Amino acid sequence: MRRDQFRPPKGVFTRSVPVRFSHCDPAGIVYFPHYFDMFNGLIEDWYGEELGYDYASLIMDSQYAFPFVHIECDFKIPSRMGEVIELTLLVERVGRSSLGIAIVCHRDGLERLRARMVTAMMSLETGQPVSLPQLLRDKIESYRKRISDGIAS
Amino acid sequence: MRRDQFRPPKGVFTRSVPVRFSHCDPAGIVYFPHYFDMFNGLIEDWYGEELGYDYASLIMDSQYAFPFVHIECDFKIPSRMGEVIELTLLVERVGRSSLGIAIVCHRDGLERLRARMVTAMMSLETGQPVSLPQLLRDKIESYRKRISDGIAS
Amino acid sequence: MRRDQFRPPKGVFTRSVPVRFSHCDPAGIVYFPHYFDMFNGLIEDWYGEELGYDYASLIMDSQYAFPFVHIECDFKIPSRMGEVIELTLLVERVGRSSLGIAIVCHRDGLERLRARMVTAMMSLETGQPVSLPQLLRDKIESYRKRISDGIAS
Amino acid sequence: MRRDQFRPPKGVFTRSVPVRFSHCDPAGIVYFPHYFDMFNGLIEDWYGEELGYDYASLIMDSQYAFPFVHIECDFKIPSRMGEVIELTLLVERVGRSSLGIAIVCHRDGLERLRARMVTAMMSLETGQPVSLPQLLRDKIESYRKRISDGIAS
Repeated sequence: MRRDQFRPPKGVFTRSVPVRFSHCDPAGIVYFPHYFDMFNGLIEDWYGEELGYDYASLIMDSQYAFPFVHIECDFKIPSRMGEVIELTLLVERVGRSSLGIAIVCHRDGLERLRARMVTAMMSLETGQPVSLPQLLRDKIESYRKRISDGIAS
Repeated sequence: MRRDQFRPPKGVFTRSVPVRFSHCDPAGIVYFPHYFDMFNGLIEDWYGEELGYDYASLIMDSQYAFPFVHIECDFKIPSRMGEVIELTLLVERVGRSSLGIAIVCHRDGLERLRARMVTAMMSLETGQPVSLPQLLRDKIESYRKRISDGIAS
Repeated sequence: MRRDQFRPPKGVFTRSVPVRFSHCDPAGIVYFPHYFDMFNGLIEDWYGEELGYDYASLIMDSQYAFPFVHIECDFKIPSRMGEVIELTLLVERVGRSSLGIAIVCHRDGLERLRARMVTAMMSLETGQPVSLPQLLRDKIESYRKRISDGIAS
Repeated sequence: MRRDQFRPPKGVFTRSVPVRFSHCDPAGIVYFPHYFDMFNGLIEDWYGEELGYDYASLIMDSQYAFPFVHIECDFKIPSRMGEVIELTLLVERVGRSSLGIAIVCHRDGLERLRARMVTAMMSLETGQPVSLPQLLRDKIESYRKRISDGIAS
């Protein structure tokens, strides 16, 4: 397997996740669906802590959901119980109702896995995609730009 | 979202999965990491019931693992509690140590999601990829060919 | 640990569950929260297949939930990947809004674990317990009596 | 349901857990097996942060496991997506190879659920219970006494 270096851009949203006993399979490494669960948690925290949106309220009160429409993921280095891994969230694209996110899982400057995920904002009532609210879109776009500048500098 | 027809090829390995309360999120649809867990179960059953390999023994006794190295998935139609969904396993490519699988989740002739997954056979001792045993490769190749013929016919 | 014999009463609701890779922890045995998930699935199936009630509709349409108010569980023999375990559902008590269930997990005539669980029927609107519908109560009571007779005979 | 006050004793091990989208079921409340997963994580953190034992090493290097032999749990108040709940760990009894723990889940001074769990130290090689190492037992006993004094004062 390749060894890909990763240096998180300045100001990027990163959270540490301890690899728990419960994440690991009989081979002693993270059972892969747990990564997707971690990613969902990261996105929740990013909404709340970075964008200032309460994810729970968005869903419970406003009757919106953010289902994934596409996911792709490259698994490069397995993670073991007791390790602490870093998850970094990058915005790739802000569409009308959709959002392209990349999540990089890394440790000690090496990429362990990288996921690209497209999520769409959907009305729970109609089941149809709805436009991202302008304020939310602005905040996401501002985050995306800030991080891109961080990469460029 | 698109509506893609799906007709399982003759002789293909398909299993029904009831969508349970525990699979569903507050929006009442399957929480997506559960699909990957279902896929892993399907592959286990395919090893045992179609290929005649005991997946548990392969891992516990022979000290091999089958980690995923790449996954991509398109989510087309959400599934709701109480529905029964069909999971169909297609083989896309048999490599030296890797295996390309597609899993189609469908119901009533419509694709609900489609995943393409590449798994590699790995030694738990060395952490390195190992060649698929010839007998296993033959059986997988034979399955692949039989299903392709089923599609063609 | 004790070795407790278990012989399922005649006519009792029993389902087989294969212990999957994903159920098991780095010690190679079932990670215990998965048992509770299996129990929930068993109760769902019991509602549908034994009592003739569609669990999904009960919750989605009728706006009822069946939260657990008390659980106790003795773990006696661990289960390993590749084993098939049997789950048997016994009714211990039918109350006004509550239901006492025992689930025995067994294999080869030996109890592996036994859980006693009390669930209550609750309105999702008010959050208050509601009386079990008479028809549902009758069916559960009839199941309980039939199985008790099966034990006695 | 009862409303039970809970005031964590001075110096007790408590961790906050955000209730995530992924913890919740179609009724919008925590699906109960997730609580047991949270408890397992709390115990892991308690080993590492309070007792100074690396849980992962204990299991991976020393070939010990800590399976639960008994669990009981009273569910009093459901928890909803977006809430932050507190988990507090109390030691009830230190045996030769077993350990009795209580975990109280609370918020705003009210108990939401309380679990009592007995775990036993077991050799992964022999499958038999082994005595808790004296140093580990001393640390747990010291924690237990400190918290009891905290309650008494």
